[in-house]
Amino acid sequence: MEFTHFNEQGRAKMVDVSEKDVSFREAKACGYVYMSQETLKMVVEGKMKKGDVLAVAQVAGIMGAKETSRLIPMCHNIPLTGVDIYFEIIERENAIRVEARAKSIGRTGAEMEALTAVSIACLTIYDMCKAVDKGMVIKNIQLLEKSGGKTGNFIREEEKPWEK
Amino acid sequence: MEFTHFNEQGRAKMVDVSEKDVSFREAKACGYVYMSQETLKMVVEGKMKKGDVLAVAQVAGIMGAKETSRLIPMCHNIPLTGVDIYFEIIERENAIRVEARAKSIGRTGAEMEALTAVSIACLTIYDMCKAVDKGMVIKNIQLLEKSGGKTGNFIREEEKPWEK
Amino acid sequence: MEFTHFNEQGRAKMVDVSEKDVSFREAKACGYVYMSQETLKMVVEGKMKKGDVLAVAQVAGIMGAKETSRLIPMCHNIPLTGVDIYFEIIERENAIRVEARAKSIGRTGAEMEALTAVSIACLTIYDMCKAVDKGMVIKNIQLLEKSGGKTGNFIREEEKPWEK
Amino acid sequence: MEFTHFNEQGRAKMVDVSEKDVSFREAKACGYVYMSQETLKMVVEGKMKKGDVLAVAQVAGIMGAKETSRLIPMCHNIPLTGVDIYFEIIERENAIRVEARAKSIGRTGAEMEALTAVSIACLTIYDMCKAVDKGMVIKNIQLLEKSGGKTGNFIREEEKPWEK
Amino acid sequence: MEFTHFNEQGRAKMVDVSEKDVSFREAKACGYVYMSQETLKMVVEGKMKKGDVLAVAQVAGIMGAKETSRLIPMCHNIPLTGVDIYFEIIERENAIRVEARAKSIGRTGAEMEALTAVSIACLTIYDMCKAVDKGMVIKNIQLLEKSGGKTGNFIREEEKPWEK
Amino acid sequence: MEFTHFNEQGRAKMVDVSEKDVSFREAKACGYVYMSQETLKMVVEGKMKKGDVLAVAQVAGIMGAKETSRLIPMCHNIPLTGVDIYFEIIERENAIRVEARAKSIGRTGAEMEALTAVSIACLTIYDMCKAVDKGMVIKNIQLLEKSGGKTGNFIREEEKPWEK
Repeated sequence: MEFTHFNEQGRAKMVDVSEKDVSFREAKACGYVYMSQETLKMVVEGKMKKGDVLAVAQVAGIMGAKETSRLIPMCHNIPLTGVDIYFEIIERENAIRVEARAKSIGRTGAEMEALTAVSIACLTIYDMCKAVDKGMVIKNIQLLEKSGGKTGNFIREEEKPWEK
Repeated sequence: MEFTHFNEQGRAKMVDVSEKDVSFREAKACGYVYMSQETLKMVVEGKMKKGDVLAVAQVAGIMGAKETSRLIPMCHNIPLTGVDIYFEIIERENAIRVEARAKSIGRTGAEMEALTAVSIACLTIYDMCKAVDKGMVIKNIQLLEKSGGKTGNFIREEEKPWEK
Repeated sequence: MEFTHFNEQGRAKMVDVSEKDVSFREAKACGYVYMSQETLKMVVEGKMKKGDVLAVAQVAGIMGAKETSRLIPMCHNIPLTGVDIYFEIIERENAIRVEARAKSIGRTGAEMEALTAVSIACLTIYDMCKAVDKGMVIKNIQLLEKSGGKTGNFIREEEKPWEK
Repeated sequence: MEFTHFNEQGRAKMVDVSEKDVSFREAKACGYVYMSQETLKMVVEGKMKKGDVLAVAQVAGIMGAKETSRLIPMCHNIPLTGVDIYFEIIERENAIRVEARAKSIGRTGAEMEALTAVSIACLTIYDMCKAVDKGMVIKNIQLLEKSGGKTGNFIREEEKPWEK
Repeated sequence: MEFTHFNEQGRAKMVDVSEKDVSFREAKACGYVYMSQETLKMVVEGKMKKGDVLAVAQVAGIMGAKETSRLIPMCHNIPLTGVDIYFEIIERENAIRVEARAKSIGRTGAEMEALTAVSIACLTIYDMCKAVDKGMVIKNIQLLEKSGGKTGNFIREEEKPWEK
Repeated sequence: MEFTHFNEQGRAKMVDVSEKDVSFREAKACGYVYMSQETLKMVVEGKMKKGDVLAVAQVAGIMGAKETSRLIPMCHNIPLTGVDIYFEIIERENAIRVEARAKSIGRTGAEMEALTAVSIACLTIYDMCKAVDKGMVIKNIQLLEKSGGKTGNFIREEEKPWEK
């Protein structure tokens, strides 16, 4: 196998996908924000009471997905047909799991869009909570599934969230 | 302690920093991209031969730092006075460590800028290598140090890179 | 009827339009900027003499239409095939009517693009004239017509411009 | 008085504010979204149950304020030190009042930022509800107050919300 | 022939391409950066030793191509399917030739994308070298070829690089 | 002299300007668009009659100046305090001269902003006229003057417009 992003001069290019078919493509990615027990409690209770951190992270992640091709230099601008983000509170880990799904009908996949949505949502959680906890760590941003396109499907055999 | 990003209606706001002093502020963050041994070898050799993945990630990370306030909803737009990114190949881990330093002279810190630079650089490494390795995982994006501003300095006691 | 923009967690999502057909879609929207008689006179005369406020608003509105999906969090990025803006001076009202038409061939309509074009054009008129008249009011931004797509056409029965 | 945004060639310019003092400046603006009684009920109940339209509009408005200088052609990019948005449900009018406050420490005022925040928040409410009500109208976007800067303060004598 | 970018009011519009066919379109453009002999030597040697100016210009040009519709007011946002940039050192001229190729499958051509890629790459070379040579001149940005679309192909008979 | 934009790893960085003084800085740049006699005539007459190409280029150039730090990877985001653009019709050359002036009060100069404004204005002229003349050439984008900052003033001894 070879890297596809370099031209004959050894410099980066936006890969030519003109010959690829337009097809439905979908990608799912996830990541984790680890924090102190107290911070997690504030996030969880905030939703009921004084401010929903995750509502802001949700919006940021979806808007981030739409910025992908402007942030990742060699990414194509693809027409996203749907983006959604889900949060899961993992109490025994003091962590929030962020999952993003991105759909597109185009000539190249939506993996980077799903990964970017997760990254921006995680960064937003960090930003919203950093006044109380600067020690938070964003962990294990990873592609979970990818379908559509010539290279076929990808399914991660085992999600990496727990082992640390 | 309390979250500072919510108003009386329980909705997010951009925190008022009008009363804060303008001062020099600096932040350092890092993260890791774990990959297969073969992929790491291609990245390392590519620099000598056919295309420098990390040169693209470097540019993406620095440009990403400048986009922080447009990506993270409640972030202030601060005048960055310097951004730099360093890569370290960690062969026994099959990982690349990404470190970003962001400097600013303003009314609020540059933590989010350093963390965003790291995140976008890691995502770019993923994008440049994903044709050969979709299983890569971005790990342990974290603030290492922060200085300047009223809340004082922050130094992470122990960087979290290895335990995964 | 139901809001379509929320997921099972009660948080916002970008609606999945993957199943929708690609078709020609068109939207027309309008809005008004009310100002003092003197300010309107300056705008009208400026075109002949010293500076065309509306030429700047025209460009801003068209560029604004292209920014819609980056401004409105759950909007899809659609391929605009044409955007145009028309101005009408309404002397007895001391107002400028702004009308925008947006066309697209895609999976979702161009209503938000037309409304955003109108909004940005109105804001630009305000900005260009605010040195002489801070009391201007932007009124009645509204969708006039929308055609194409599964939900069928929409035609506003009676434009709301005059009653105030 | 004269328009300040035109040069000797009669074309638009970004006004030179180099000689102006850096000072604290604040602006307050508001606007309204009129809708059907049923739509308003869905927005109000949604907050409790299935999805908070206004939380999304809040984030959009604040992010929109930060985009002002990129949307309004002759606007300066000013360092916003705080932005907040408040919503008020006006049941007898079947309307939502949107109020934005923008603060800055710079060489020119934050009026356009406050007005843009209101406009984008209103457009977002429209977008989130348009599946059930395309007849909504955005009304009376207006500057309420402005303080700081050489031209002195501005206070609108009478807010224009009710008369229609 | 007539300008196509103006409406009946004599103001600019985004030309309606709704009736045009979707087809493969390609454009090639080039430009030159002239500099002192010493500066050119530093660029050439830098690649081997201490920093690759052209690697940064490459990334900037490709990202610039993706920004075209946001920079050029009446440009359509087209789905770029591939962008590449090539550099040639012209020693006897003390110049660097920048060539960009842009491909798209859409309703309008990619000429502006190729020209914008060249322009941003040239500006980036200027920026990276300006500490040692402010006298550099960017010359002869021009369309070389264009194929696809109803208006047929364009091939520049003679590239304009040498005569100055 | 040395390039200042590279770090110890030989990769690009945003130069640290934290130690530089805030001062008033100004830059003036120019460029040319060469076209056929007929095209130039259409631009000149258009202003009187059917559409002002240069009014659109003016707005695009000023907005482009504000995008500089987002387009040129290692550029700092500086607070522009004024931007203006002037056009001159050079009939015997069948060319339009574009001159931009950018002012800033900050820690680094506004050269790139002036050069970017010129480039984007030239590209916009090309775009607006390309339906009638694809052979246009953008020539001699160059810094004319620069004042302020530690490195002192720069004045180009002889503008390069005529020799071709």
